[in-house]
Amino acid sequence: MLVRFQPHNREIQVAKGENLLRAAMEAGVYIQASCGGEGVCGKCRVLVEKGETDGPRGPKISEEEFGRGTRQACQTRILSNLEVLVPIESTLDKRVIARTRERVSAGRKVSHQELESLVLGWCFNPALRKHYVGMEPPTIKDNRSDLSRLLLAIKKTHGHEGISVDSRLLKKLPFILREAGWKVTATLVQTRMESQLGEYQLRGSRRVKLVNLEPGDTAQEHYSIVLDVGTTSVWGQLLDLNNRKTLAEASDYNSQIHFGDDVISRIVYSQKPGGLKKLQESAIGTINGIIRELAAKSGTDLSRVSHMTAAGNTVMTHLLLGLDPKYIRESPYTPVANFIPPVRAANLGLEVGEHVHLYTFPSVASYVGGDIVSGILGSGIYQRKPLTLYIDIGTNGEIVIGNADWMVTAACSAGPAFEGGGIKHGMRATTGAIEDFRIDSNSFEPMLLTIGMVKPKGICGSGLINMVAEFFEAGVISPNGKFDIDLPTRRIRPGSDGMEYVLAYGEDTATGADIVITEVDIDNLIRAKAAMYAGYATLLQSVGLAIGNLEQVVIAGAFGSFIDVERAITIGLLPELPPDRFLFIGNGSLLGARLISFCNEMLDDGERISRMMTNVELSESPGFMDNYIAALFLPHTNGAEFPGVSQRLKQ
Amino acid sequence: MLVRFQPHNREIQVAKGENLLRAAMEAGVYIQASCGGEGVCGKCRVLVEKGETDGPRGPKISEEEFGRGTRQACQTRILSNLEVLVPIESTLDKRVIARTRERVSAGRKVSHQELESLVLGWCFNPALRKHYVGMEPPTIKDNRSDLSRLLLAIKKTHGHEGISVDSRLLKKLPFILREAGWKVTATLVQTRMESQLGEYQLRGSRRVKLVNLEPGDTAQEHYSIVLDVGTTSVWGQLLDLNNRKTLAEASDYNSQIHFGDDVISRIVYSQKPGGLKKLQESAIGTINGIIRELAAKSGTDLSRVSHMTAAGNTVMTHLLLGLDPKYIRESPYTPVANFIPPVRAANLGLEVGEHVHLYTFPSVASYVGGDIVSGILGSGIYQRKPLTLYIDIGTNGEIVIGNADWMVTAACSAGPAFEGGGIKHGMRATTGAIEDFRIDSNSFEPMLLTIGMVKPKGICGSGLINMVAEFFEAGVISPNGKFDIDLPTRRIRPGSDGMEYVLAYGEDTATGADIVITEVDIDNLIRAKAAMYAGYATLLQSVGLAIGNLEQVVIAGAFGSFIDVERAITIGLLPELPPDRFLFIGNGSLLGARLISFCNEMLDDGERISRMMTNVELSESPGFMDNYIAALFLPHTNGAEFPGVSQRLKQ
Repeated sequence: MLVRFQPHNREIQVAKGENLLRAAMEAGVYIQASCGGEGVCGKCRVLVEKGETDGPRGPKISEEEFGRGTRQACQTRILSNLEVLVPIESTLDKRVIARTRERVSAGRKVSHQELESLVLGWCFNPALRKHYVGMEPPTIKDNRSDLSRLLLAIKKTHGHEGISVDSRLLKKLPFILREAGWKVTATLVQTRMESQLGEYQLRGSRRVKLVNLEPGDTAQEHYSIVLDVGTTSVWGQLLDLNNRKTLAEASDYNSQIHFGDDVISRIVYSQKPGGLKKLQESAIGTINGIIRELAAKSGTDLSRVSHMTAAGNTVMTHLLLGLDPKYIRESPYTPVANFIPPVRAANLGLEVGEHVHLYTFPSVASYVGGDIVSGILGSGIYQRKPLTLYIDIGTNGEIVIGNADWMVTAACSAGPAFEGGGIKHGMRATTGAIEDFRIDSNSFEPMLLTIGMVKPKGICGSGLINMVAEFFEAGVISPNGKFDIDLPTRRIRPGSDGMEYVLAYGEDTATGADIVITEVDIDNLIRAKAAMYAGYATLLQSVGLAIGNLEQVVIAGAFGSFIDVERAITIGLLPELPPDRFLFIGNGSLLGARLISFCNEMLDDGERISRMMTNVELSESPGFMDNYIAALFLPHTNGAEFPGVSQRLKQ
Repeated sequence: MLVRFQPHNREIQVAKGENLLRAAMEAGVYIQASCGGEGVCGKCRVLVEKGETDGPRGPKISEEEFGRGTRQACQTRILSNLEVLVPIESTLDKRVIARTRERVSAGRKVSHQELESLVLGWCFNPALRKHYVGMEPPTIKDNRSDLSRLLLAIKKTHGHEGISVDSRLLKKLPFILREAGWKVTATLVQTRMESQLGEYQLRGSRRVKLVNLEPGDTAQEHYSIVLDVGTTSVWGQLLDLNNRKTLAEASDYNSQIHFGDDVISRIVYSQKPGGLKKLQESAIGTINGIIRELAAKSGTDLSRVSHMTAAGNTVMTHLLLGLDPKYIRESPYTPVANFIPPVRAANLGLEVGEHVHLYTFPSVASYVGGDIVSGILGSGIYQRKPLTLYIDIGTNGEIVIGNADWMVTAACSAGPAFEGGGIKHGMRATTGAIEDFRIDSNSFEPMLLTIGMVKPKGICGSGLINMVAEFFEAGVISPNGKFDIDLPTRRIRPGSDGMEYVLAYGEDTATGADIVITEVDIDNLIRAKAAMYAGYATLLQSVGLAIGNLEQVVIAGAFGSFIDVERAITIGLLPELPPDRFLFIGNGSLLGARLISFCNEMLDDGERISRMMTNVELSESPGFMDNYIAALFLPHTNGAEFPGVSQRLKQ
């Protein structure tokens, strides 16, 4: 069967009966598939313009739409040659994920250099060093082994002793030495014993290992790659290990999103035959793309990359390394391991030299991963006295409370609302997403701003927060999120999901259909923010503290960077504290990974942090449900928690 | 083209023009090929009974033989279907290499248990331990990672802390734990840091690493395999690591002999395209056969093998690990490395679990290998005061002189005479080889004893020593190895290689042809023994000592075990010393490998020994040529070196 996808104009030959979503994936055609192919999210709608298919209609498609050829790709089997149109709402847009936000918001944003100085005791001392070494050729009077000759020369010129050697190097050793006229560049790594590998021990002497040998003098070309492997997107930076520079940055969607939007649907997919391998290959493919982009942008040779560091949540780390995440999803939620020894990057399929090892940040628990450990490391919270709330807002919101003496952490499943999921016209923060919103308090007419300033396509998470805050302050919705149906505006109207507000009529939108926000959407956001609030409130209670005790709030994560603090406080997502207590650190994973690449000593800190953290399972905490229910109002059932917001509303 | 080999009745289909020796190898038909296919040894003769071939006649085949269809297989290309007869002289016989010698000879032979007690400070303490561990399943109150749970349980039950883990184990960890109901057996290894891996450092703390996990309680099944990888044959033993027992022994020819008899021809072959890989695969194939035989003999499951240790000369070690031996052959004779980190056995193609590491004994120099280090370790010479000569007689004779304070070592190329090479009717010590010999001093008629007591096929090395000693004592040959042609016997006659003595006429032999020993053969043996003698004499001189200073002579090696000390003294191969100073230790490589497998601490000793040894390049020693020339007589030019022999001859 030949299937042609439009507007891509891509063709693929498949067997009769093949799943249409799978065919699209294989053809390289991107279609959103939020639910891992379970048919419940309804995001993967396509229009079959020609040809025959079968499969159920599913609850997300009306009979009328079905009659016109609309299908959920994941539910559809191919029975003949097809012509398929992929509507723009169903596609992803890579271009804009790397946008930077210029708008000034409340809270401090700091520069890269400033960020690196958040952590104390940081010094420039990479674990990997390159050394140029020249030797005298062997003679009959001095015919020691090639390895002995090399190690003796390294000892003489650079003082390193007791060097061990990667056995893979031995095969090429005699040829490199001779072809290079006994002038070579050695890459040495200072590794630790137990601390890097063990699950319990912290200390451990360092040893020096010879991991690579290059002909001639290449000591000046010495790079490292750091990665933030997120559920939705992957970011990478190329670092110069000789002079502490970030040479390039690149990012892309994690192509695992074809197999599901969130970690749970990824785990579900990983349990299908071949699923784990596909997920691993997807992540590796994405990273390889980033690596190539980093090389192209900086004009460097990838064979000169000496090391890689990755931070990701526990599930992403498992999938990247090919560890089965099955038991992360099943109660009592156990990961395979929190500390994972460095692995050879090339063995995973990463396109770097075979000597390159990938270090992954240690995790704390199934839903508190290396990304959080990395962010805590980068923000220096574990070194300072002020009581800090560290918060990474997202589908899987992660929360840390503590300081240099102790830290507690929890993950709370906020649902996908912050990333546009579960929202009727929700979408990721890409071109066409409504990200800012004002409402005229007389006419109740909207002012919209979209990313890329184009016709609106949908609503992204930060836009949703802004909308709900505006609606609430303008009295369009009540504290329980219901529209005031008595307002004099035709934009509030009954819809298929209850009452809705029309943000843009079809003639103004990219899709040609009305874009609305529904009471169900608002309810989803309220549930999401309530989960986050209940998370940190419960964590605070678990250590006998209250919100007023917080001296600092650190907001991490790509999504966090785009939040308007004031409006997030208005809806009760962030605690009501003076604006100068909020600090945005952006991508905390990359920050920590960069620090560790540049500074060998920080590795111990990463592991110390993960051991310091006490994980709290919120679902097991007696207060959590009460806190959650109390937070299911705007801003909160108890106005005293948000005195400023309550005050403003009264005015 | 179809080629059928007789008497094996094996067929193989090959392309026209294929080399006949290669076809035989591929058909699994063993043909001797001493010279690596260079056409110079003439051992690979076959009779082409039907069909067409081409290729040169070569100097080893007469025109008449060539006319009858005799060919050197290595020089012959296949042009049509063939019927080929492989004569018995050209085949190898595996059955008898494992024979044990019952005959009492001069010098002490000691039992296994006695042998293991030669070394001081030996204790039963294997590097690898298996521990049964039971755990409580995870609960929501205790949902630490699977790895943490396991390591904590090991810590509680067995006291090990700071355990690192093989990252390959992680993939299967969650499944093994659950399928086994949280009852598993862990294999832990105590490894050292620098000392095992580094080229320079000796000390280094040990660390514990988890390398394997099996469901249930398998702690009682815990084995190790030790190997002596010799140029000619490979020996293996299966050890029980729980109770210090040797459960089985097996041996086979190193199938690398298809590619050449000695290390030099192997190196030559390794430089052909694909040659190194083939040599490695051959050795691995031989070892796999031995492994299977060990398992079958002992009824053990190979998946329970935890570790492997191999000792071999430097070239064998290089080939086994796939390291290119090219520069070992070229002046100034440098090996790639003397200390090689343990490698994963499965990566080499060995049929054991993927967690099994192969430790190879460190070498000293290009021609003084791990087999010698292993033998020195096993014999305890490095721990004791008596001045000892350690001698491993063979094609590459290896000599060590020293004691607990110092050791010097040298390799001397004796040539293949001791293994039947370069001898007109020479053969290995297998069925049909004449191994013992007496001559009637009146009739000069011979008494022959062959291995397996069958019709003679040829002469093995120990037989040759016995013959030449008998001839010499009976006055059949003069001190320069020439036959007394005036003796009243028709057995001494002119032959194609000068004068010869007929050991057996055609009617009495397995081949139907006369078996003779020629003056050229005797000359080859004299050159070989002169090289060995000059080797230890020169080594002694290099440290200002003489033969009379030797307090002990340790004879190692399979060949050494079959030497009659008295007769070896008669021809001047061994020094004339009282018989009780000679000690036979048999296979020194296996002895040392066994000790190390059973006793972790001995690993350090192996490396200490290899560092203690000073290698002397005999070819660079000024006295060597003089010593060699002086030794080209029976027993020696200077009768005072062998007063007893001289005395006896006078009588």
